[in-house]
Amino acid sequence: MKTQIGAVNSLYPMPTTIVGALVDTKPNYTTIAHVGIMDLGSISLGMNKVHYTNVGIKENGTFSVNIPPVHMVKQTDYCGLVSGRNFNKATLCKTFYGKLKTAPMIEECPINMECKLVKTVDFPNHDVFVGRIIATYSDDEVLTGHAVDFEKVQPILFSMNNQDYWRLGKRLAKAWSIGKELTSQ
Amino acid sequence: MKTQIGAVNSLYPMPTTIVGALVDTKPNYTTIAHVGIMDLGSISLGMNKVHYTNVGIKENGTFSVNIPPVHMVKQTDYCGLVSGRNFNKATLCKTFYGKLKTAPMIEECPINMECKLVKTVDFPNHDVFVGRIIATYSDDEVLTGHAVDFEKVQPILFSMNNQDYWRLGKRLAKAWSIGKELTSQ
Repeated sequence: MKTQIGAVNSLYPMPTTIVGALVDTKPNYTTIAHVGIMDLGSISLGMNKVHYTNVGIKENGTFSVNIPPVHMVKQTDYCGLVSGRNFNKATLCKTFYGKLKTAPMIEECPINMECKLVKTVDFPNHDVFVGRIIATYSDDEVLTGHAVDFEKVQPILFSMNNQDYWRLGKRLAKAWSIGKELTSQ
Repeated sequence: MKTQIGAVNSLYPMPTTIVGALVDTKPNYTTIAHVGIMDLGSISLGMNKVHYTNVGIKENGTFSVNIPPVHMVKQTDYCGLVSGRNFNKATLCKTFYGKLKTAPMIEECPINMECKLVKTVDFPNHDVFVGRIIATYSDDEVLTGHAVDFEKVQPILFSMNNQDYWRLGKRLAKAWSIGKELTSQ
């Protein structure tokens, strides 16, 4: 039976990311799982306006999106619990820079994307930053051939409904393929 | 070692959804995994402009986001393989309506959200539709207490990198909680 449960966002789980930006010329990081894909090369970050990192993204027009693995779950959660106003989160990790020079990235995260801010969509309590991916860096250990293999990345997934982090499970099927079996039945 | 692998979107896996809209007064559905969360109550759909469903979303200013479970992976993939211009996809499922009256939803999907279009963000090849969630419907079987339990939903996750569908794995930790252990060490 269907129950109307209110107007509850149930578009989960989402990949948990750590977003990096320079704030006052210093690297700062914050944990964001309210993310999205706009078109293949553009991603969005729904960031509450209280975040210290927002200031840096607006200042520099650049940011990074880092994908932490399961074994970094404590640091990842901690990075969302404390503000860069009160604590220098760059002490938790090694920072490196890429093409853009102003998008600090986290060495310990197996996937790092540096992004150029192309749009900001304004919501009452959130800045939604839309970034064009300029370059992606990957640990060799998480590639299979030339492609990122999420079984090796072991990303942290997030759902708001019970405030849980989740592991990724097994591969299920090939997209744009498994559905063809319906027509041959 | 880090390798620069181009400008590859690696913000995956994403939840696979089936988006519903009325097109020419008839229910139509399409599979979309390039989705996002803008703020807690607003979600985005990055939909290639070729989709037939886009016409209906623009016409009515409403749409639904349905979360298919693992056992519907063939129908879900199929729904993304064929166009509503050529095939009546409403024959694949039972349609129901909620508060908005013009956002067709899929009975067989355990979670359904009806949304009001509040913004369209234009990209060269994509319409990004931003919807405010107006009401959410859930099968009683996927609730634990009053909250949606994704272990019971068994959503289909998607990554573009190898064009794979994935299962959700096990619960890993509590968000806004596990990180506190770092400060007590």
